[in-house]
Amino acid sequence: MTETTQIILARRPQGDVTPDCFRLERRALPAPAEGQIVARTLYLSLDPYMRPRMTELHSYTPPFELDRPLTAGSVAEIVESRNPKFAIGDVVVGMLDWATHTLHDGRGLRKIDRAAAPLPAHLGILGMPGYTAYHGMLRMGQPKAGETVFVSAATGAVGQVAGQLAKLKGARVVGCAGDDAKCAYATAELGYDACFNHRRETDYGAVLDRLCPGGIDVDFENVGGAIFHAVFARMKDFGRMVMCGAISEYQDRTPRPGPDKMFTIVQRRLRIEGFIISDHIAGMGEFVAEVGSLLKAGKIRNRETIVDGLDRAPAAFIGLLKGENFGKLLVRVS
Amino acid sequence: MTETTQIILARRPQGDVTPDCFRLERRALPAPAEGQIVARTLYLSLDPYMRPRMTELHSYTPPFELDRPLTAGSVAEIVESRNPKFAIGDVVVGMLDWATHTLHDGRGLRKIDRAAAPLPAHLGILGMPGYTAYHGMLRMGQPKAGETVFVSAATGAVGQVAGQLAKLKGARVVGCAGDDAKCAYATAELGYDACFNHRRETDYGAVLDRLCPGGIDVDFENVGGAIFHAVFARMKDFGRMVMCGAISEYQDRTPRPGPDKMFTIVQRRLRIEGFIISDHIAGMGEFVAEVGSLLKAGKIRNRETIVDGLDRAPAAFIGLLKGENFGKLLVRVS
Repeated sequence: MTETTQIILARRPQGDVTPDCFRLERRALPAPAEGQIVARTLYLSLDPYMRPRMTELHSYTPPFELDRPLTAGSVAEIVESRNPKFAIGDVVVGMLDWATHTLHDGRGLRKIDRAAAPLPAHLGILGMPGYTAYHGMLRMGQPKAGETVFVSAATGAVGQVAGQLAKLKGARVVGCAGDDAKCAYATAELGYDACFNHRRETDYGAVLDRLCPGGIDVDFENVGGAIFHAVFARMKDFGRMVMCGAISEYQDRTPRPGPDKMFTIVQRRLRIEGFIISDHIAGMGEFVAEVGSLLKAGKIRNRETIVDGLDRAPAAFIGLLKGENFGKLLVRVS
Repeated sequence: MTETTQIILARRPQGDVTPDCFRLERRALPAPAEGQIVARTLYLSLDPYMRPRMTELHSYTPPFELDRPLTAGSVAEIVESRNPKFAIGDVVVGMLDWATHTLHDGRGLRKIDRAAAPLPAHLGILGMPGYTAYHGMLRMGQPKAGETVFVSAATGAVGQVAGQLAKLKGARVVGCAGDDAKCAYATAELGYDACFNHRRETDYGAVLDRLCPGGIDVDFENVGGAIFHAVFARMKDFGRMVMCGAISEYQDRTPRPGPDKMFTIVQRRLRIEGFIISDHIAGMGEFVAEVGSLLKAGKIRNRETIVDGLDRAPAAFIGLLKGENFGKLLVRVS
């Protein structure tokens, strides 16, 4: 019998997520039935999309259930198995509980090679965030050499990859991030042509006019709100707005109105398109091959913040929603 | 020497277009130089897109020039020619002045066969409005059998064709129009499954919930404003919003905010895309062949309002912006 420690959704947040939305519980897992495994989580991924899942009852993914563990993309080791596809000692990636151990039927878990890349990479640059950046920027945004690309949350798990992929296509890439250190990292290490601190700047229109004087061809949207509105007004003819997230709006108690003058979409022939990466799993192999090679060749960089201990996951997630992480945020569970 | 009567842009409107924005002038046209023709306008098309061109100085098309004649899609007869491509008596379609006669270099004018269709059809169902509907609905919206399609301005020059093309694809088609007679026409003659009067209804969300209980797959947007916002909130997963126009917003003195909660675009993986038909002229032949056959076979209907006399064009245009026309609005000039 295996003991597990779980983080339970204790109540749904209204507005900002607070520590009392979570509850830590220890319990004994039942022995695996035929077909089941027990996975011991090594790393757990914290991502902004989890915030809507805490409250949105009619969203694209089922909401987290009240009084049940939240789930997260995780790297885990199989410690018990009654499933012929998994042997004890196998390392897998997939959706597991916010927990030290998860009892699971194995569906959706994918075995990974420990030697292929550092384990956290499978939750970041070679995992869902990296694939989100790849699919959104290259397949949807399709930046061309000489075009101007804007990436909000420029150094986040998704933004850092999106920005670098656009640079590799020869675009001019401008971003924003939440502090000066992130902005310095974006330009010095990630190759952004410019990056502004959205907490220091107040007039986003003016700063965009200065940094993107000819307008914007591709917007990779992670943030929403005032920055998105300012970008919308500065899109060039035939511009593409790739709608990936809107972290600044996730904790709104009442929904915010969209940007002024939607007729701009007609005048400038804009394409504004949303996506969710889980719809595109079939095309993930291409991404792993391409970005894996870039990573091995040292042509793309990857920054992570790793927090130690499952019990610190709630506070780390609350910090993520405030932009306190730097790069991909992970929890080392064991 | 030819006398012409022209409608001149006397001042740019602020808010609603008023009669004093126009001025009627009579003048003598210079004799055509080498390569020029004089075209006598038979029919002139009035279209909502002209309103932004009266004021928008940084729009996709150059604005109308102050103290110069406005221009319009027109059917005209060549009455003088020093251009080898055009003979006296040829009938052409293209952009000409709001005038009885236009001196022109012939570029962009296309000869038409008088016998092929009634002349006004070249400015409506077989012209730019029809092609706008065809390109927007079939190539961009791509409605499938069983899907729910919404068309605002359901009986307008563009909407009436868009709605019928969606019906021919087997979609369920719901529209809105500005009076009960138009709504009755939409359902009885154009085949709409339902049509509501947007001047009688006040709660657009409630009426859409009733008429499109499962949500909307394709929105063909002509109107903007509150109706667009209500439709946006009811789009289904993978829905397409084809942004053609926003007539309800053209006379705004200050721009209006967009719909609430733009994150909906991500959650439902929406594609919102604007277009201007003049970007797609190369693909017009396919449309003329296909919709021309439908028209000949009696499979598609076409409603026009024809106003007599160039001097009535300004009042007719002001009425168009208030939704007073029924179907395609034209002026018979001579």
